[in-house]
Amino acid sequence: MKLDKNLKILIVGLGLIGGSYAMGFTKKGFEVEAIDIDKKSIDFALKNGLIKNGFTEVREETLKKADIVIFALYPHVLVDWIAKYQQYFKPGAILSDVTGVKACVVYDIQNMLRKDIEYIAAHPMAGKEVCGVENSDNRIFRQANYIIVPTDRNTVNAIEVCKAIGQTLGFERISSLPPLAHDEMIGFVSQLTHCIAICLMTCSKSEHLVDYTGDSFRDLTRIARINENMWSELFLLNKDKLLEQMDKFRKEFDVFYDMIEKGDEEEIKEKMRQSTARRALFDR
Amino acid sequence: MKLDKNLKILIVGLGLIGGSYAMGFTKKGFEVEAIDIDKKSIDFALKNGLIKNGFTEVREETLKKADIVIFALYPHVLVDWIAKYQQYFKPGAILSDVTGVKACVVYDIQNMLRKDIEYIAAHPMAGKEVCGVENSDNRIFRQANYIIVPTDRNTVNAIEVCKAIGQTLGFERISSLPPLAHDEMIGFVSQLTHCIAICLMTCSKSEHLVDYTGDSFRDLTRIARINENMWSELFLLNKDKLLEQMDKFRKEFDVFYDMIEKGDEEEIKEKMRQSTARRALFDR
Repeated sequence: MKLDKNLKILIVGLGLIGGSYAMGFTKKGFEVEAIDIDKKSIDFALKNGLIKNGFTEVREETLKKADIVIFALYPHVLVDWIAKYQQYFKPGAILSDVTGVKACVVYDIQNMLRKDIEYIAAHPMAGKEVCGVENSDNRIFRQANYIIVPTDRNTVNAIEVCKAIGQTLGFERISSLPPLAHDEMIGFVSQLTHCIAICLMTCSKSEHLVDYTGDSFRDLTRIARINENMWSELFLLNKDKLLEQMDKFRKEFDVFYDMIEKGDEEEIKEKMRQSTARRALFDR
Repeated sequence: MKLDKNLKILIVGLGLIGGSYAMGFTKKGFEVEAIDIDKKSIDFALKNGLIKNGFTEVREETLKKADIVIFALYPHVLVDWIAKYQQYFKPGAILSDVTGVKACVVYDIQNMLRKDIEYIAAHPMAGKEVCGVENSDNRIFRQANYIIVPTDRNTVNAIEVCKAIGQTLGFERISSLPPLAHDEMIGFVSQLTHCIAICLMTCSKSEHLVDYTGDSFRDLTRIARINENMWSELFLLNKDKLLEQMDKFRKEFDVFYDMIEKGDEEEIKEKMRQSTARRALFDR
């Protein structure tokens, strides 16, 4: 399925991801409007041609026009926003999002949503170490994963539209996971890795180490530059799954510590062979 | 100080790093010879112009000619090798190495070494996820750190020669650290990060996760492809320092785990702000 170019796109929340979505859609010839409470973000997006129109207030006529609405908001404001304004959406509109955790929002939204509009969750696994619309760049989607996160309530049509959004924006891999499986996976591949990067930076006074860091340390701590408001919220909204993954990791780390303490060379080598074989699969 | 182009260079051990040293020196116009027990490695280096001459046996006339000898051997063979063959070195020769741990080898070597030759340790912090001379590439030194690791017994002249080696090979940053400080630093920035990457790959059956990994997980596990023979040896030779660093990290990880479990948003944010500020220093 290809998205009809006449569909009107509305982006709610013009940060790094909202702005990059806007940029991607606009470059593909879609008419994109945006809502953000920050006037500077709207002005930037207008001035740089990311959007056609932008507003700091939520206006009925803006919502009425949109065929596809993408929410790029913090999770804690997302549900309330939709509750408050859903009355104005166009019948048949499809709502989607970019939120990094799913189970804690998608069911609430679908439960309270008008029956003539549909909410289909999606997670673009892309980002930067900087935030804000001024850092927007739709090229971040190029080698990235786009995950559709449908529930039993989603229609085949909405899932297809959601997939077409990912294709339009140029994601390399598009896949699908139910909300709980998504949150478990994200707890491991994304949230746990951010926790590790943070602890690597904070566990040691490392200012003087800059002169000695090789690529390894740089790679492992790149994501230690983190938007604390967004990530603390994502961590706590996915607390149970994240703690499970952290626990799995720290138990393994303890096992490895004990092997080194005992000087058990063969066991250490076996772990290294296992990690090498598994990691090699990623580079095929 | 600039290295005189007439100095004869001998590389003992033609793996990835030995081969890349040979390539770097040869490109700069030096005459490079090499010794390696593996005939295929010597043949590859000869065929690809990395060296002028190469031998699988240790011959007196080869050692007698060399003004600078670089050892790119596994630590456990390094000390014995020098003990066995030091009688043949040219008076005034300077020996150096590329070994990743220092305190466990440098003192032993300096204690037994002939008085008319000098051993000055160095650590090129560069590498690849693949090993062997056939992967040699002196460009790996370009953005890398080169650490001179002198002891009280080293002369100013040998330290200058060692520095000139780093400059000749094109390292971006050259610095100096005593052996114990070096091993502590390396325990943190290099060995600990490798332990973390390994445990991330082994703590969870992650084959099916390939489809969902973003850059974060890829970055944190790039170094999980590891030469198990070399790294298990390096870990165990630096065991005390490494365990200290692992312990520091896991305590911090436990603290962070507890913050998330308690849902203490302010403390989590404070850690994130700290990690962001520290990591930002790396990107100046």
